[in-house]
Amino acid sequence: MSQARPGRLSYALRVGSTQDRPTLEDVAAYAGVSRSTASRALNEEMYVSPKAREAVLAAARDLGYSPNQAARSLVTKRTGAVALVLSEPESKVLDDPYFLIVMRAAFRELANRGSQMLVMFVDAPDDIPRTMKFLDGGHVDGALVFAPHSGDPLPVALKLLRVPVVFGGRPGRSGSDLYTVDYDNVAGARLAVEHLIGLGRGNIVTISGPEDHPAALDRLTGWRETLAAQGLPTAGRAASGDFTQTGGEAAMARLLDEHPDLDAVFVASDPMAIGALRALRMAGRRIPEDVAVVGFDDNPSLAPVSDPPLTSVHQEPAEQVHQMVEILHELLSGQSPANRHEVLPVSLTVRESTQR
Amino acid sequence: MSQARPGRLSYALRVGSTQDRPTLEDVAAYAGVSRSTASRALNEEMYVSPKAREAVLAAARDLGYSPNQAARSLVTKRTGAVALVLSEPESKVLDDPYFLIVMRAAFRELANRGSQMLVMFVDAPDDIPRTMKFLDGGHVDGALVFAPHSGDPLPVALKLLRVPVVFGGRPGRSGSDLYTVDYDNVAGARLAVEHLIGLGRGNIVTISGPEDHPAALDRLTGWRETLAAQGLPTAGRAASGDFTQTGGEAAMARLLDEHPDLDAVFVASDPMAIGALRALRMAGRRIPEDVAVVGFDDNPSLAPVSDPPLTSVHQEPAEQVHQMVEILHELLSGQSPANRHEVLPVSLTVRESTQR
Repeated sequence: MSQARPGRLSYALRVGSTQDRPTLEDVAAYAGVSRSTASRALNEEMYVSPKAREAVLAAARDLGYSPNQAARSLVTKRTGAVALVLSEPESKVLDDPYFLIVMRAAFRELANRGSQMLVMFVDAPDDIPRTMKFLDGGHVDGALVFAPHSGDPLPVALKLLRVPVVFGGRPGRSGSDLYTVDYDNVAGARLAVEHLIGLGRGNIVTISGPEDHPAALDRLTGWRETLAAQGLPTAGRAASGDFTQTGGEAAMARLLDEHPDLDAVFVASDPMAIGALRALRMAGRRIPEDVAVVGFDDNPSLAPVSDPPLTSVHQEPAEQVHQMVEILHELLSGQSPANRHEVLPVSLTVRESTQR
Repeated sequence: MSQARPGRLSYALRVGSTQDRPTLEDVAAYAGVSRSTASRALNEEMYVSPKAREAVLAAARDLGYSPNQAARSLVTKRTGAVALVLSEPESKVLDDPYFLIVMRAAFRELANRGSQMLVMFVDAPDDIPRTMKFLDGGHVDGALVFAPHSGDPLPVALKLLRVPVVFGGRPGRSGSDLYTVDYDNVAGARLAVEHLIGLGRGNIVTISGPEDHPAALDRLTGWRETLAAQGLPTAGRAASGDFTQTGGEAAMARLLDEHPDLDAVFVASDPMAIGALRALRMAGRRIPEDVAVVGFDDNPSLAPVSDPPLTSVHQEPAEQVHQMVEILHELLSGQSPANRHEVLPVSLTVRESTQR
């Protein structure tokens, strides 16, 4: 790289006059590329030439740039707005009552602190560049992000932002250096399965969530480990759903077909559990006498009003959002939060689907 | 006011160098008050002294300031973001499927044009200053607004924004100089009532929406005028609900009590109609044999799946949002939309709640 490059020159001028730690702009200027090219290169995305990528990586190394919280506490001009970014196919965001509860809790929590919530949907990877442009354009003080699918490129992209970001749940890919507030999904599944074992059930199947969903995998692990520890069978006893009622109904029908003697089912979400109840009724099984059913979420608009009312692993979205906002404000005020990965406890709410 | 006022001076300097029409800043500078004081004064809000109000109104008069689209086409720096502002108690926004459909349609419509949608909730008047600050802070190119209650101070406040605003529905107060895209609510009610009369019903009651809701009042007017034109009775035959299922159920119970011989009901929203169906069943009335029921909205997640499926006035939120975005883009490109008040046609979808 030539010293004559205007990028490098402007970088030299900038560092001469500030104490700032290097930013993405600095890396881009040093490498003589645009900010978006630098972002793409660091993000290991396509659409960047090998030459540009090499220049950007060299620049990041030279400058000691780390694409994380480095420059975030330097942001001084506040806008009073915080983005709530929901990365999930649009239909899912609007149909899944979990997201509605999150929106409601975040609005309240942020309003109480005088912050304006901006809900942003990310429907597909195509939406990411536009989202990043806005988030990095000085319009928001920070972002609360729900991106529950492990293949989602959004969390990696967000590491390049100059504003702090806190994740709800645990992004599957490269999540270790992100701030996260998750539930203890393994423990939740364990509570559910131990409850079923305690009721004398011995053929406990599960309906798990999507395979690209870390929380769903944790629930599956909890189910498997708890049964294995008691010497109970697991092989062939898990069917995957997609977190919807119809997905849960189809998975339950498959499990009934393959294991007609099943006497309990742990379902990794409440909507899927509602579907499972329907499949069990259609197969003439009495709940809970023939088959006991446990859901996950304890969704207030589903679990207490289902027929019969659903035993479910209880998690508290308001508490999750509260913790996320706490961490965001610590980051904004230049503090280092005690934990990078907050894990919230869960409990079990017992209703008639397991115990009359 | 003294010429020595720094505000007035800086205004004089500004107009000397530009061809701009006067902006709110100009008015504030001329009157020697802050921008927010000028905004509050023009907005007839509280928290502004009589003296300041007088100065601001005089300044607006002197400068020929009109708080509308005047300065809007002058906004040149685009952010690519458009706000979708939903002014309704939070619980209502998240529970009413109508708002979910609007969010979904607006996201798709804006994404197709490369714009980032930002959903902003306005839960209560307390939220308005924060919302205005963000909307007027250069963060968005424009706003799509749903503020269906006539007492809502938001529409008046939004007139002061420097970015274009398009309303969905018709704000009750001071709506004549706003851009609006509404449905023909009077015609929708007329279609519903004419259908019921055509079926031979002669004692047609109505469950109306909240009294501070212009669309609800239009539907009530359509019901009353259509019956009156046929010489059918209306007196004492309207009960007001709050657009919820429980509100509809209670209103239906009252009407059954007062008019046990009623043979049809026009209900001003689908959720209220679902509640009315429940009240009618509990009273032992057969639908449609004893009582025919028509809803309003033709909500895809309610009307076709209710028991029995609901005849309903059909409106198309995707078309409404499409028109709103069209008008917004015309305003952004400096054009004058042909109509300030777009009114979309509605139709009637006939199902088993009126005709087997």
